[in-house]
Order: sequence, then C-alpha cells, then structure tokens
Amino acid sequence: MTSDAPDAGARPAPDLDALVDGVLAGDRTRLAQAITLVESRRSEDTRLAQDMLGRLLPHTGRALRVGITGVPGVGKSTFIEALGLRLVERDHRVGVLAVDPSSSLSGGSILGDKSRMTDLARHERAFIRPSPAGDSLGGVARRTRESMLVCEAAGYDVIFVETVGVGQSETAVADMVDFFLVLLLPGAGDELQGIKKGIIELADVLAVHKADGDNEARARDAVSDYGAALRYLRPRDEGWTPRAVAVSSRTGTGLDELWDIVKEHDAWARESGALDLRRREQRTRWMWSLIDDELRSAFRRHPAVKAALAGIEGDLAAGTIPATEAALRLLDAYRSARA
Amino acid sequence: MTSDAPDAGARPAPDLDALVDGVLAGDRTRLAQAITLVESRRSEDTRLAQDMLGRLLPHTGRALRVGITGVPGVGKSTFIEALGLRLVERDHRVGVLAVDPSSSLSGGSILGDKSRMTDLARHERAFIRPSPAGDSLGGVARRTRESMLVCEAAGYDVIFVETVGVGQSETAVADMVDFFLVLLLPGAGDELQGIKKGIIELADVLAVHKADGDNEARARDAVSDYGAALRYLRPRDEGWTPRAVAVSSRTGTGLDELWDIVKEHDAWARESGALDLRRREQRTRWMWSLIDDELRSAFRRHPAVKAALAGIEGDLAAGTIPATEAALRLLDAYRSARA
Repeated sequence: MTSDAPDAGARPAPDLDALVDGVLAGDRTRLAQAITLVESRRSEDTRLAQDMLGRLLPHTGRALRVGITGVPGVGKSTFIEALGLRLVERDHRVGVLAVDPSSSLSGGSILGDKSRMTDLARHERAFIRPSPAGDSLGGVARRTRESMLVCEAAGYDVIFVETVGVGQSETAVADMVDFFLVLLLPGAGDELQGIKKGIIELADVLAVHKADGDNEARARDAVSDYGAALRYLRPRDEGWTPRAVAVSSRTGTGLDELWDIVKEHDAWARESGALDLRRREQRTRWMWSLIDDELRSAFRRHPAVKAALAGIEGDLAAGTIPATEAALRLLDAYRSARA
Repeated sequence: MTSDAPDAGARPAPDLDALVDGVLAGDRTRLAQAITLVESRRSEDTRLAQDMLGRLLPHTGRALRVGITGVPGVGKSTFIEALGLRLVERDHRVGVLAVDPSSSLSGGSILGDKSRMTDLARHERAFIRPSPAGDSLGGVARRTRESMLVCEAAGYDVIFVETVGVGQSETAVADMVDFFLVLLLPGAGDELQGIKKGIIELADVLAVHKADGDNEARARDAVSDYGAALRYLRPRDEGWTPRAVAVSSRTGTGLDELWDIVKEHDAWARESGALDLRRREQRTRWMWSLIDDELRSAFRRHPAVKAALAGIEGDLAAGTIPATEAALRLLDAYRSARA
C-alpha cells in the first residue's frame, strides 16, 4: 500500500523480464531476488513488485499451503525439517516461509538462524526464507503471502508457513493457507501450555510433538485429551473434523500418518469445492483487509488526528465524554483538515 | 456516526431538559423516549442524542453489566426472567436489553415478542427493551451500548444484555459488559450444540440450563465436561477462572449459586482494578471501532468505489489479479475521486 520506510542503500532496478523468466524456470537466485523485491519497502519497488506478481499469478495456486504454529520451544523448526526432508525425498519441492511480526527489530528472526534446518536448507528441492522485517503484522503477512505466490510460480508444490504465535499472527497465517497445523507439547493434562484463545479452533490438525522416549505415554494421553476437546468445537469447515496425532521428529513416529491426514484433507477440499471456496474468500478478505488497514493507518497518521487525540483520549479514559462523542470529534478533525 | 436512513414519519423534537431530568428521576416513560432518541437513525437526532448522553454520563457506570448468550432454544428469555425476578425481589432494578443484528428486517425480534418475560416486564423495578433495528451489527451494538448508559442513569443497577449469537454479536456484547455468561443445553457429551468458535473463551461463567427432571444427570455431566474443557483455555482475565454451573429456571436450581459467582467476580474485579481496566479498554476500543466503521463505510458507499468494485471483484475471484493490486486500484479510485 504505502512505503513504510525507504530501505537503506541503493540497489539497481531489477530486470523484470529476467526475474519473471528466472522464477518460472525455478532459478533459486532469481527466486530469492523476486522475494527481495516483494519484501522491499521502497515505494518505487511496490509498483514493480505488483507488475511481477501480476505476471506470475497465472502460474500460482497449485501448491499445498500448510500453516504451522506452536509456542516457542515446541520444536517447529525441527518438525518442519523432519517433515520437509521426507517430502523432498518423495520429489516434492518444499518452500518454507515465516510470519513473525516480532522480528521487525532484528530484521527477521524466525528461520533467520542459519543453524536451523541445515539439512533441509541444503537440499536442492527446498527453499527456506526467513520472516520479512516489518513494522506491523499486516505488512509482514502481506509480504509472506506474496512470497508464497512467487514460490508457487517457481514450482514449489508444498509451502510451509511458520508462525510463532504472536498477537494475531496465527489468524493471519490460517487465512493464507489451505491447511493449518497446530504443534503442541505433551504437557500436563491441565495447564496445557496456556493455549491462546481461538488457536485450537483454527486447526485442521493438532500434532503433539516430541512423542518419543519418556514422553511417549504423555503424548498419547495428550492426543486423547485434545481429541476430546476438539469434539466441543465446531469445525472450521463442514465436512472436515480436526484430529489430534502424536508425532516425533527424532524417531519419525507419526510423520507419515500426519502427512496422510494433510493429503486426505486436500483431496476432500478439492473434491468438495471447499478449497476453491476457501481461497476465493481468502483473496476477498485479504483485499478488504489491505484497504481497511490503509484507511485506518491514513487516519491515525494524519497530523490533525494526532493533534486532537491526546486530549480526547484523556477525556475518554476519565469517562467525561462517551466514546461516540470522542469518535465524532476525531472524525471531524480529520475531515475538516482534508476538506 | 451517520444517518443510515431517515425514520418513517415526523416526530416533534424532544425536550432535552425534560428527557434528562425524567431519566435521572427514573421515569419509565422518559427512559423509553430517551432510548428511542438513541435508537433514532435520523441525522438531526444524532447530535441531540449525543448531547443527552453527555449530560447523563456522570450518572452512569454504577450498574453491573451482564452479557448473556446462547443458541436459540436454550431458554435465554426464561432464564433472564427467572433470574431477573429473583433480583427485583431483592430490590435490584433490572434492565434487559438485546443485540440482535438479524432483527433489522422485523424491526427488533429479540425480546420483541410481548409474550416473553411477561412477569418480569410487569415488575416496577424491571425495564425490558427489544433489540433496536439496524442494518449492521456495529449500529445495533452502538445503540444497545448507549441504551445501557441511559438505563444506568435511570438507576438500573443490573443490566442484562442478551444476544442470540449471530455473527460476531457475542463478541460485541462481551465487549460492553463486565461479566459474560454463556447459556448451554445439557446436550450429548460429544456434539455439544456446535458451539461457535471462541464463544466459550469469552465466558466468565458457563451455565448449563434446564437442569431439571430427566435432564438433571445429563446437566451434571455436561458441567463436569465443560469444567474440563475450560481448563484447556486461557482465561479472559488473569485472576479469574471461569466455572461451569447447572441451573434450572423452572425449579430455581443453581440460580442463587450462579448469582453468587457473578457477585464474587464483581467483588474481585472491583478490588483488583480489573473492572476499571476492562471498562477503560472497552471505551477506547469502542471509540476506535466507531471510527474504523465509519472509515470503512464511507469508503464502501463512495460512488467511485462502487463503480470500480464490480470489475475488480470479478478479476479477483477469477484469480487474474492479486489482492494487493485489487486493493490499490480501489484505493486509487477513492482518492482520485476525492482529490
């Protein structure tokens, strides 16, 4: 939408034809450059990136898009590497992206550590990209979503989108994928990891990780507990009931079973039309959320609004004016300044 | 914010002083008129209503605001009447309001049926008002929220806000009350009534209704099941753990226990500062949501946007342009037309 901030340093304008051709040919260097263009916050790159996406778009949409979330320490990277290695060995081409708005300071922390997923990263049929930097979840999610399209155009047929679960990032990821996987620890039955509101309800599958060694029995118990909890929730789609499975990245336990569930969901979603519907709805929601984000942020950054806000917020907190009055005053300030 | 549509028929401008004085004196006729003013969608009434609210505001905030939701058939009216009658008999003054955006066609369906809550409606210390008509949840919720303030100024010290649970209406209600009660049926353990995503997580208490006769054992089982499910969820507030109880409006079972929980929550929330914090946050969120609603709707109703939308939405659904491009085009159309 808008340029958040100019990137540091100058960079020659990329050759769009070369980029598009390279991406379509599966050239990893071009793919990386194309994603850099998508991630750029320089205003002159925004138009270029949109032109590129427009040309790549006919070659997108054929991948299976899988979102993965879980609390820190659950082993997301280990899990994605273990599952990803199985898939590349079966001739899949696997792209791994991330949404992590908390990484804006560090410039991308998830997947940014080079020591993570080293085996998968070295594989010729895998492509791993850290979370883009960004000052808002919306911005980070937008860049990841567009990077996903670029990866698809480059022939990656399985895309994992990882998120650590900060703020609303799981919802943002769930709204860009075909299948949403929540990774859990075989914790105690009761205080289970303070699962965030609504996360389980986004899940198409719950995977209890580290189901190996001493943890195995606890993991089975957790699977049974979660299975019971899932029965209390309305499924995300009519026609698909989320399940819980126990998996281990170390021993490989459950990974095939889990992937069979993903494929079963995919077959069901394609045949029933649920996939088309979900993606169409995602695109429309995405468009409106981009528009609404821009309307909101244009309002909030307007000098007239900023000037009026301090006094109005104080009155509101003190309870001396109703919220409706506060809203009217801010809208008046905005409109008067633009009239 | 804006006048949605002029009301049919002319009505003389109300005398603001008489209204304010009457409301503060607890005059039910004036109270009803004041709420009619709040509910009016005539643009000339909007300013008047805000003036009135500004004058009533110092007299608001002392009621206990209780939100109640549940699927159709769970017996919300019966429950509110049974609980409300107990409260008015203990000298409470009870206001009952509703949020039901689905009632826009009928002009207010929830509580609109005169045969409902007849005993409570006849009581001098009770005031029952159907859901206002409205073309959006935001509009209906705003009017109910402001009616709640008017009831408080009129001396009602317990306000029930009922919602049938359409779309996001539970969230809207939960965001205007101090305590949120979810009413459930003693259904089968497994397919429990297709509870909507996130509803249980909004609850400060779950009440399993119709716990009488043959249902009693099933209700106890449901309470135990729900109690287990609640342990999987992070509570809405640190310091308050939601509970499940069995209640019957027919026999009165559990109603005192339930109200004790409400009072316990209230005492905790006042002492801990959670009540002040929740209300302050609600006011701020409400102000921003009013602003964002108005920005959104001003965009959507702009002729330039409407003109551009059909073609752009078609391209988007067909997948020939990315959502970012679609959003940029609509924003361009809007800004060009206003420049």
